[in-house]
Amino acid sequence: MASEFDLIARHFTRPGRRAHLGIGDDCALLGLAPGQEMAVSTDMLVAGTHFFPAADPRRLGHKTLAVNLSDLAAMGATPRYALLSLALPSADEAWIAAFARGFFALADAHQVELVGGDTTRTPPGGTLTLNVTIFGEVPVGRALRRAGAKVGDDVWVSGTLGDAALGLAALKGEAALAPAQREYCVDRLEMPTARVELGLQLLGVAHGMLDISDGLAGDAAHIGRASGVSLQIEPECLPLSSALRGQPRDLALRCALAGGDDYELCFTAPLAARARVQAAGQAAGVTVTRIGTVLPAGAAPVLWIDGEGRALDLKLAGYDHFGAA
Amino acid sequence: MASEFDLIARHFTRPGRRAHLGIGDDCALLGLAPGQEMAVSTDMLVAGTHFFPAADPRRLGHKTLAVNLSDLAAMGATPRYALLSLALPSADEAWIAAFARGFFALADAHQVELVGGDTTRTPPGGTLTLNVTIFGEVPVGRALRRAGAKVGDDVWVSGTLGDAALGLAALKGEAALAPAQREYCVDRLEMPTARVELGLQLLGVAHGMLDISDGLAGDAAHIGRASGVSLQIEPECLPLSSALRGQPRDLALRCALAGGDDYELCFTAPLAARARVQAAGQAAGVTVTRIGTVLPAGAAPVLWIDGEGRALDLKLAGYDHFGAA
Repeated sequence: MASEFDLIARHFTRPGRRAHLGIGDDCALLGLAPGQEMAVSTDMLVAGTHFFPAADPRRLGHKTLAVNLSDLAAMGATPRYALLSLALPSADEAWIAAFARGFFALADAHQVELVGGDTTRTPPGGTLTLNVTIFGEVPVGRALRRAGAKVGDDVWVSGTLGDAALGLAALKGEAALAPAQREYCVDRLEMPTARVELGLQLLGVAHGMLDISDGLAGDAAHIGRASGVSLQIEPECLPLSSALRGQPRDLALRCALAGGDDYELCFTAPLAARARVQAAGQAAGVTVTRIGTVLPAGAAPVLWIDGEGRALDLKLAGYDHFGAA
Repeated sequence: MASEFDLIARHFTRPGRRAHLGIGDDCALLGLAPGQEMAVSTDMLVAGTHFFPAADPRRLGHKTLAVNLSDLAAMGATPRYALLSLALPSADEAWIAAFARGFFALADAHQVELVGGDTTRTPPGGTLTLNVTIFGEVPVGRALRRAGAKVGDDVWVSGTLGDAALGLAALKGEAALAPAQREYCVDRLEMPTARVELGLQLLGVAHGMLDISDGLAGDAAHIGRASGVSLQIEPECLPLSSALRGQPRDLALRCALAGGDDYELCFTAPLAARARVQAAGQAAGVTVTRIGTVLPAGAAPVLWIDGEGRALDLKLAGYDHFGAA
């Protein structure tokens, strides 16, 4: 029987392209084009915490890379390289092959080279754990940081929010969905789209940006705190899919504000850039929606208002555990 | 009670120094000095596979970084940055604080900046898993690769081999050691020394190099295969500590050749560089020992000989699972 090391060599080793040295030595060697800086991030996915232990391995391979690509997208960086670590409870070739197919399908789409990694076995019954480190390039000084929001900016989000959370609720039997909507939402959970092209289009346009991985409420607050401002957001303006609009309002808001796993971009941009933001969305093939305004720092990093501009106390509606206050 | 995120912020966030942007955004931003390339590597450590689940957390923090620094040492790279991912079965502040102390004591000694990471919880009873990605700089084209060995080179190793394996045997009750020797060997297992300074001293001196993490027999074979040569090694020349010399010959050889966790450097260098190699060892404060010669590719990537130059068939002595053949 092949060892997991043979399996990894068989399924994960690809010829190098851009890297000076790829898989097979103690380190990979990477260059950096003049005028660029390297954007790096790492994300760990744990069975039972981030995905069901029986998750489809091809989809898991996709998601493991996608959540890391989303961090590059959030800075406006161009993806270049990845390192992949796997701790596997068993050496199951079919599983590894399917995981690799999902991983490389997305890597190839973004011209990401896998330049190294580590493969280990857990003890019997151990926890399947995956870790990716992602490397991108961005022109020096132009990366879109959380701290860049300016008073008077619009607040925007890409795509629709809450679909992945609704998909999770459906998988858990906590939400009823028509078959097509269920499939759509589960796809959004298991096969998220990193908004890499949108991030690139927003370089020089947006001011402050991050990706929404833990729900808009908490993540928008990160922009507010990092930028020393308050983001005033109108929940009625949130872009919701038809699947989410068909749900009870309380569930829909909960999914959209605190659901997690959206991997959409939340960003701020000056009013004068509205047309450029819309053009960026069109170029990237994703809708962009204005959801609020950046104010001087107020009572909280995120302030919720209704359509008449009246403060909404979402905490009274049971949202105080969202981390938005 | 503080969440693990509060704990991580408290124990792992340090002011940035060299990085353009450190912890706290979607990505860290790193520069690269002109004429340098970035050496990167990642290592995952899994409880029950790489360390005892009850391992001292300060020592574990040290080892988690040390095994990654050793990969930089093996290329002759200068350590710069690290990313740290932790999957924790529980949020135990004393454990996290001690882990951070061990990690940063070594990071500070090598001026390594922690620029980001990821902290997650495992499900109840999950496997504690750690992953570090390490970043170093090396002058373009000068990194010491496994493929650099040349016919006629000497084969060298740093330090002594097999002590960590003997320490593990002692912890398992499989070897009897005097208290001071036991302490020394367990320290070598739990607090390994990455030979970073030696790696730097060997730039421009050595030809092919790697770090010995899985035992000399298997790792020397990596050099042989990558370089298209055979390393002829004399087991009687291996540098052994007094602790290992006091053991039965069979156990001593097994520890020294297939023990793992040595984190010493194995390298080849031309005969004309012998004085420079010795000077490199002195400058780095570690012994270096000649253990063999590089031959044209022969029957195997590593050939074992006795003191009279006669071939030793270590497989007959039960070493065929070493991966050296």
